[in-house]
Amino acid sequence: MVIVMSPDAGENDLAEVVSNIEAAGGHAFVSRGVARTIVGVVAGEEVLENLQVHALPGVADVVRITAPYKLISRENHSQRSVIRVGGVPIGPGTVTLIAGPCAVETPEQTLEAAQMAIAAGASLLRGGAFKPRTSPYAFQGLGVRGLEILSDVRAETGLPIVTEVMDASDVDVVAAHADMLQIGTRNMQNFGLLQAVGSVGKPVMLKRGLTATYEEWLMAAEYIAQRGNLDIVLCERGVRSFEPAIRNMLDVSAVPMIQSLSHLPIIVDPSHAAGRRDLVIPLARAGLAAGADAVMVDLHPHPESARCDGPQALTRDELPALASAVRTMAAATDRTVAVPVPA
Amino acid sequence: MVIVMSPDAGENDLAEVVSNIEAAGGHAFVSRGVARTIVGVVAGEEVLENLQVHALPGVADVVRITAPYKLISRENHSQRSVIRVGGVPIGPGTVTLIAGPCAVETPEQTLEAAQMAIAAGASLLRGGAFKPRTSPYAFQGLGVRGLEILSDVRAETGLPIVTEVMDASDVDVVAAHADMLQIGTRNMQNFGLLQAVGSVGKPVMLKRGLTATYEEWLMAAEYIAQRGNLDIVLCERGVRSFEPAIRNMLDVSAVPMIQSLSHLPIIVDPSHAAGRRDLVIPLARAGLAAGADAVMVDLHPHPESARCDGPQALTRDELPALASAVRTMAAATDRTVAVPVPA
Amino acid sequence: MVIVMSPDAGENDLAEVVSNIEAAGGHAFVSRGVARTIVGVVAGEEVLENLQVHALPGVADVVRITAPYKLISRENHSQRSVIRVGGVPIGPGTVTLIAGPCAVETPEQTLEAAQMAIAAGASLLRGGAFKPRTSPYAFQGLGVRGLEILSDVRAETGLPIVTEVMDASDVDVVAAHADMLQIGTRNMQNFGLLQAVGSVGKPVMLKRGLTATYEEWLMAAEYIAQRGNLDIVLCERGVRSFEPAIRNMLDVSAVPMIQSLSHLPIIVDPSHAAGRRDLVIPLARAGLAAGADAVMVDLHPHPESARCDGPQALTRDELPALASAVRTMAAATDRTVAVPVPA
Amino acid sequence: MVIVMSPDAGENDLAEVVSNIEAAGGHAFVSRGVARTIVGVVAGEEVLENLQVHALPGVADVVRITAPYKLISRENHSQRSVIRVGGVPIGPGTVTLIAGPCAVETPEQTLEAAQMAIAAGASLLRGGAFKPRTSPYAFQGLGVRGLEILSDVRAETGLPIVTEVMDASDVDVVAAHADMLQIGTRNMQNFGLLQAVGSVGKPVMLKRGLTATYEEWLMAAEYIAQRGNLDIVLCERGVRSFEPAIRNMLDVSAVPMIQSLSHLPIIVDPSHAAGRRDLVIPLARAGLAAGADAVMVDLHPHPESARCDGPQALTRDELPALASAVRTMAAATDRTVAVPVPA
Repeated sequence: MVIVMSPDAGENDLAEVVSNIEAAGGHAFVSRGVARTIVGVVAGEEVLENLQVHALPGVADVVRITAPYKLISRENHSQRSVIRVGGVPIGPGTVTLIAGPCAVETPEQTLEAAQMAIAAGASLLRGGAFKPRTSPYAFQGLGVRGLEILSDVRAETGLPIVTEVMDASDVDVVAAHADMLQIGTRNMQNFGLLQAVGSVGKPVMLKRGLTATYEEWLMAAEYIAQRGNLDIVLCERGVRSFEPAIRNMLDVSAVPMIQSLSHLPIIVDPSHAAGRRDLVIPLARAGLAAGADAVMVDLHPHPESARCDGPQALTRDELPALASAVRTMAAATDRTVAVPVPA
Repeated sequence: MVIVMSPDAGENDLAEVVSNIEAAGGHAFVSRGVARTIVGVVAGEEVLENLQVHALPGVADVVRITAPYKLISRENHSQRSVIRVGGVPIGPGTVTLIAGPCAVETPEQTLEAAQMAIAAGASLLRGGAFKPRTSPYAFQGLGVRGLEILSDVRAETGLPIVTEVMDASDVDVVAAHADMLQIGTRNMQNFGLLQAVGSVGKPVMLKRGLTATYEEWLMAAEYIAQRGNLDIVLCERGVRSFEPAIRNMLDVSAVPMIQSLSHLPIIVDPSHAAGRRDLVIPLARAGLAAGADAVMVDLHPHPESARCDGPQALTRDELPALASAVRTMAAATDRTVAVPVPA
Repeated sequence: MVIVMSPDAGENDLAEVVSNIEAAGGHAFVSRGVARTIVGVVAGEEVLENLQVHALPGVADVVRITAPYKLISRENHSQRSVIRVGGVPIGPGTVTLIAGPCAVETPEQTLEAAQMAIAAGASLLRGGAFKPRTSPYAFQGLGVRGLEILSDVRAETGLPIVTEVMDASDVDVVAAHADMLQIGTRNMQNFGLLQAVGSVGKPVMLKRGLTATYEEWLMAAEYIAQRGNLDIVLCERGVRSFEPAIRNMLDVSAVPMIQSLSHLPIIVDPSHAAGRRDLVIPLARAGLAAGADAVMVDLHPHPESARCDGPQALTRDELPALASAVRTMAAATDRTVAVPVPA
Repeated sequence: MVIVMSPDAGENDLAEVVSNIEAAGGHAFVSRGVARTIVGVVAGEEVLENLQVHALPGVADVVRITAPYKLISRENHSQRSVIRVGGVPIGPGTVTLIAGPCAVETPEQTLEAAQMAIAAGASLLRGGAFKPRTSPYAFQGLGVRGLEILSDVRAETGLPIVTEVMDASDVDVVAAHADMLQIGTRNMQNFGLLQAVGSVGKPVMLKRGLTATYEEWLMAAEYIAQRGNLDIVLCERGVRSFEPAIRNMLDVSAVPMIQSLSHLPIIVDPSHAAGRRDLVIPLARAGLAAGADAVMVDLHPHPESARCDGPQALTRDELPALASAVRTMAAATDRTVAVPVPA
């Protein structure tokens, strides 16, 4: 951390800054320049996060230099990680397709969707049992019954399951059925939930908040890691923007940026970003071309009667194009498609 | 709801739209214009929220006309509501000042801050015992011990207490100590938490999410109302923007807009919006001039040693200016300052 | 400027940074800290703006400390300026009301609007002759004929005139008729136009770009000032946001922020921010309460037949409320209403 | 256009809406539904753009249905266009690489950069002679001398030239030297400039404004087309966002969206979006994978001494990776690389 003093700061202001840092357990190094005096700080993360030197008189600016996340940072872990979900890898060297219905509605719909996923080359099945919905009047998901349907479909198809958990009190039951727990966009900073999934022995997919900065997102991952769970995959799913024609704006820059800042894998969800079917495959291609380790898409046997997000679900007609997008983008970026688990 | 068919939609597309609406329990009214065919829908909120007609072939656009929130809408409740917190009103006709430290740190600091609040004309005390922090390495609040300190300070000063609850499992203990439960920005769509505070007999302050639209925010309030608790106050606390010089951008338009859409009171929090002391009083004045029913500000006896958000806390020196801002803005908008509870 | 070297930067990287600064004509001061080496730079603005040290190996971060605008900065000019437009002051100590039609349509409409402006207490008349319109099919303004109408109305009412200039080649003709030249939002970084109005002997109102940062906006003002014209008033007119319910989001934080960064006056335009009549007066009050030196509003004798932005124009019915808002907000912030020029 | 009346609108409100439409030259079709009355409007674009029915009493909502741009819309021109620049195609079926220095500095630097561009497979040379700069103290480009250098380098290498024009008064001189005129981000709504390039017989590249919606951007293109020039290429170059770690956010959704709305080609500029070298190639791949018709990148023989945007310029070391990205992405999307013009 570097503290820049203002030109009119006096010696007593400087002394107070230094004593503040030392009282907190850090070390202060003063450099007197011609125009400005600068104080370098060396200290542990707890000290740096809790310093309130911005509030002191004579302080013009405070600049962080080291990353405020430690366990997930690439600074201290130069090799990018591979996370395994029921044996399926997500990480460097492979491209993984995760597909399935937005919401689990019936055993038949879920099984049909899983078969569609396999047809497109997916090796993991997504499907929501607990659904976070903007309106209290909208379908909220089947809950535990949905988890049971997913378990049955896994038994039948062999596909490991990714499903969302919305509440700390549901973590145990979701973990008992799922192979990977998803934290949704709206819960990216639900810290109790992050700590709960940090204490469970299953991989976690952490979706980016609607306008979370990279740093805030990585700090949320650090909450999970701090509890001992480092099997975390980050998911870019579009950010809120000023553009009314699209639901969210897929931020493909997040892919190379996160890969340079953290050793954790990053994937993209073009379906929730776009909110409309015709954009899903171009955005899936774009995300994979930027280097995403996996892509997650919604599909549905009968989108017109879906209980959630029908307009964005791919149909049977689009499965060959999806399969081809994954295959060609993997090849064009020197990677292989993660092998589907045999049914 | 109005469904606009595309110009090339056929009769079978139209028939499918109509049968879809009727199968869901709604009524469809077809108007054949020269250029376009339009379908009006009359149905209850559950039907409208779960219709997936966007996904049908031939549908060009779907336009909501009635508000998707019912219990908190001004459409059905033309009188604006007054919410009482420990006897102190928030609503039309009055301006209420809520003040106190960002975080409860010690009994002495909390009592001093409460006395500062009273000196500025506050009738409610704010103070955080559970603190949502971006970094897991930052001070997380004193928890239940903080609630006990707040209770003691209320006993000594008579000021009712507003404090945040972050987790559904903490709602009972917070409700046992607090006069009003605050839902923070990051939890605006933590639906389990919303439902939990909806079932408790205490008023709730619902802060706006960092980029929540007015509609999403009001829908979050509807989640609380649906459980039977209509004692809800909305709090505008700045939205995320592109401007690096300020922490968040206080959206004063939210004040008249929310007052026209909902009967619930709306207040502003200039301290968390600005993130810096020198903007707090101008923004407090702006919010009140726009018609906010209350203003909530951070203050601290010793901001330079605060454990959280020191740079934005007002100091003793600024109390007269704060008191004057509240008084003059109340007078200029034909309202009275809500009377402080005697200590 | 402070350059922070990365931890793995070598001596040769440091030497290259230093020689780069010196070759450009600046002075470099090296401070070797424990964790990082930091280079302070002292140099003139041309040198700082053209240094490309970000591109050098071993450079981790570059932090500006002094403001990159000089002529308009408050650093070098601690007294806030008063700008006079046809004798009417805009600046500290007064609140000025500028009002008039969005577009000049006919002599009758413009005169009626001017009389409405006077009735509300305005001392300056706004009105557009050249209209920047998103669509090439929309009404583009009356051009020079509009300027003549404005001149006639000034002769009749005594109100000095504020009107927009869109093209460098029109600056002379607009300056021949207007008392103040307005640069619109879309032209905030039309540098040729900024330089042209910088060379003319009339005050300039510079509207903020739709997502211009404070720094970019002030740099645009610096372009004008550099040509010798320091009679500049900045106008906050709402920024682009994610919120669909309002046209733009009035950024009231800009008022105290700009006043702390620059000696130039700042005003607000609630009409273009809101895009709807019912928000104009609350937002005008908010802007003035935050300390804006003036407020500019659209009004129209017959908004339903306006050729531009009818929905936001105040009508005759709202003039008393507007007059009262200006009067009460001036009083509540210890200022006087700028005296209208007698007709 | 569809006008939705509010539930409490009376017959006189409806009559006024209808007479307003008819007075303007449009046709109104009234549909009385159970809950709401709806008025359909059929009219030409000039009538629709100038209707001010939002301002009338009883009007709840106004919904545009047809695109407000005509000449460039895909509604009326289903085949996507190919634009030729000095014989090089930009459009469906090919991928075109445009490369060169951000700014023309010297004949040697420009020639070296052109040779680098050729080495990477480029068939068009970019380079700025007139540079729009945020600061008046920054290098503003060589002006006409820069155009002459570009002409010389074209004579030597055979590469057609793309260069920016900032002012309507410079259009003739730029058109005399350039093969394609670029309109920069800050000038997207400089309507006089748009009309000037619309009257010149050279192709135009129109960059998207920093927070322009798709509709505003296409309307700006319509201004050019309206003057008779339909040789327009749209360029997505990143939009302003809340994320501090990147300069702008490349909006890859714009590629398929614009291709569905307009027949004009769309390209991406990853260099100006990213602002940093390490993101350029991943973003170039992403843009092309999304279907962009061309990619434009900055490169420089000596970025550390560049006079503008050095940190984003690719160096010699990165040329093979750039060439490979263009080649593999063209192949993966079934297109060919546009053939470079022989030197």
